[in-house]
Amino acid sequence: MTMNAVLATLTENLDYLRERKPLIHNITNLVVSNVTANALLALGASPAMVENTEESAELAMVADALVVNLGTVSSSLAAAMQLATKAASEANRPWVMDPVAVGALGYRTRLAKALLLNRPTVIRGNASEIAALADGAGGGKGVDSTLRTEAVTGQADRLAATAGCVVVVSGAIDYVTDGKQTVRIANGHPMMTQVTGMGCTATAVVGAFLAVTEQPLIAAAQAMLMVGVAGELARERAKGPGSLQVEFLDLLYELTGDQIIARARLL
Amino acid sequence: MTMNAVLATLTENLDYLRERKPLIHNITNLVVSNVTANALLALGASPAMVENTEESAELAMVADALVVNLGTVSSSLAAAMQLATKAASEANRPWVMDPVAVGALGYRTRLAKALLLNRPTVIRGNASEIAALADGAGGGKGVDSTLRTEAVTGQADRLAATAGCVVVVSGAIDYVTDGKQTVRIANGHPMMTQVTGMGCTATAVVGAFLAVTEQPLIAAAQAMLMVGVAGELARERAKGPGSLQVEFLDLLYELTGDQIIARARLL
Amino acid sequence: MTMNAVLATLTENLDYLRERKPLIHNITNLVVSNVTANALLALGASPAMVENTEESAELAMVADALVVNLGTVSSSLAAAMQLATKAASEANRPWVMDPVAVGALGYRTRLAKALLLNRPTVIRGNASEIAALADGAGGGKGVDSTLRTEAVTGQADRLAATAGCVVVVSGAIDYVTDGKQTVRIANGHPMMTQVTGMGCTATAVVGAFLAVTEQPLIAAAQAMLMVGVAGELARERAKGPGSLQVEFLDLLYELTGDQIIARARLL
Repeated sequence: MTMNAVLATLTENLDYLRERKPLIHNITNLVVSNVTANALLALGASPAMVENTEESAELAMVADALVVNLGTVSSSLAAAMQLATKAASEANRPWVMDPVAVGALGYRTRLAKALLLNRPTVIRGNASEIAALADGAGGGKGVDSTLRTEAVTGQADRLAATAGCVVVVSGAIDYVTDGKQTVRIANGHPMMTQVTGMGCTATAVVGAFLAVTEQPLIAAAQAMLMVGVAGELARERAKGPGSLQVEFLDLLYELTGDQIIARARLL
Repeated sequence: MTMNAVLATLTENLDYLRERKPLIHNITNLVVSNVTANALLALGASPAMVENTEESAELAMVADALVVNLGTVSSSLAAAMQLATKAASEANRPWVMDPVAVGALGYRTRLAKALLLNRPTVIRGNASEIAALADGAGGGKGVDSTLRTEAVTGQADRLAATAGCVVVVSGAIDYVTDGKQTVRIANGHPMMTQVTGMGCTATAVVGAFLAVTEQPLIAAAQAMLMVGVAGELARERAKGPGSLQVEFLDLLYELTGDQIIARARLL
Repeated sequence: MTMNAVLATLTENLDYLRERKPLIHNITNLVVSNVTANALLALGASPAMVENTEESAELAMVADALVVNLGTVSSSLAAAMQLATKAASEANRPWVMDPVAVGALGYRTRLAKALLLNRPTVIRGNASEIAALADGAGGGKGVDSTLRTEAVTGQADRLAATAGCVVVVSGAIDYVTDGKQTVRIANGHPMMTQVTGMGCTATAVVGAFLAVTEQPLIAAAQAMLMVGVAGELARERAKGPGSLQVEFLDLLYELTGDQIIARARLL
């Protein structure tokens, strides 16, 4: 049922996204800021990467969605994230959190839990990160997960229910849950893990879809599906991780809803 | 007349740039620092990305040109910009300002106006940014313009006259003015707006040309022309925004003055 | 003899690297953080880019190697570097320093000398940087060397002996020394100097090899050899610096030990 809804409005939402060009405010990590901006532009959105404490709340109040990524968080970035997520929440703007390496490092784990109070619309992380955010377990190896998606679906459901948001666990299988309804997506390719920022890009694409529909579960699933299909098609065209990234951006630009639906592997 | 001067010295200036490899000091935004450095290297310049308060003035005094970009400005970056532009101005070194999102956000709008006191040689922005800098109007949507070049030529002329510099408004038509003489350039391709940092790269290329000629209007026009021609040729070779960026860098490396002149559309 | 040892264990070390996926902690510069992470991922390592003062020591204690790059150093990055290199040293973890623009700018020159007290395992720089670190001479033009490798081999040997580490001088010829044994590598291509961060990438690849062998001289030479061979093969496939970078990442992913050995030009 949810699966059908994901496919039914995909073309409509993607076309609307490209027509509307929503303003997506990103407070992200310095490793992926360029590729995140390029992915949002290729997709048809209008990214703004503003992360100082002076302007973050000002922009978050008017942006169509906010993306917060903890990858290279510092105390000043943390302050900007606090201000922006509070402003987005008060202005009823959707925002999505990417808890990079939460569970593996202490400072960001505490920050991520504090940001939950500003009620994210969606949280997207790998299995270790979601487990750590749900109940302090997890761990992970640096930024990489040491757990599989299947091992943490219960924790993802619980996190979604307690935080009142949609949770996405990405991996070989992507798991999308609001605590009751769930979608599993089997698209993608392992070589995507050898390109930095693919997860961060997925989070940003979730933000873009949140700007064009008021159904966060649908938005998150459609975004993960599109990223997975673009990634596996990019792998078919690429010789290695370097060309995969280039092809991936080209595919975000050219893929139609019909092409994505034709390759969708929803479980 | 100005148009003829732009074409007459293009090959000479480009060849000299590649031979001299001028040192271009960049205080830029973290989204585009990699692609800015790559563009300057591909073009034949020697970029240095130094933005701390400890070393910015030290480098600005000896660099052949300075590029200041407000894209992801913070209080520490703002301090480095103040120090570096003051040092460049006192040492009679050319410097160029890119007022990213000025008009849309308050902090950077005040900063950009303050930096005008250190007398930039060139300002390059989109129509909204130039309008905001000229008289407080403008606005813009995040980093994107909501105005067309044609709507702000009067403001660009006035800004050039009052600030005593060359102003470039980039868009479908690029407008280059020193308040009296003007050049319009119709090269480029709309897909360039779906690659992040194309405007920032244009600003850096202006900086590189400023290092090889003492005529700022000519330098700015030649730089914008080269970027436009490289962009439209890259579009012909590319499947989408990902490959456009790769082709664009290759073209900055390979284009000769004659090839640029053959495609120039000066109005 | 050393040359033979470099080739004898190359395939074994590279295969082990790809199997073990060592965690490489990077405190690097914002210009190259994306391409550094992508190079390490393409090679088969697991990079983590963590540079705040809150978490840098925590990660350095458990990472398989640490890479410290002074390219865009600030006071907060400098503090993180101090904490992380001290933690790595105390935990007997290998770490490698890239003294970008040391000699050309004062603040970082003093910092690099201070970091020597935490006993780097390897230092990789260009000729000007190594000369400046060895005895205060050098200079350099921004981030580019004004000296040739051959001019500074004596200084490199002395630095290696006094700092108790391996020193790599990269250039047309790469020189690797521990103060007694030396290797010279003639692989690579001049166009690599027109892609930003190629030296920084080489430093990160040294870090990855340090994680799979306890012989720093061998690790450094194997890393420089692989980067040189990947670079010259990338040049054969590329039209210019833009495509060279893409091909280079693909080659880090696909090159086998045998392919590298077949093209090795050790002197």
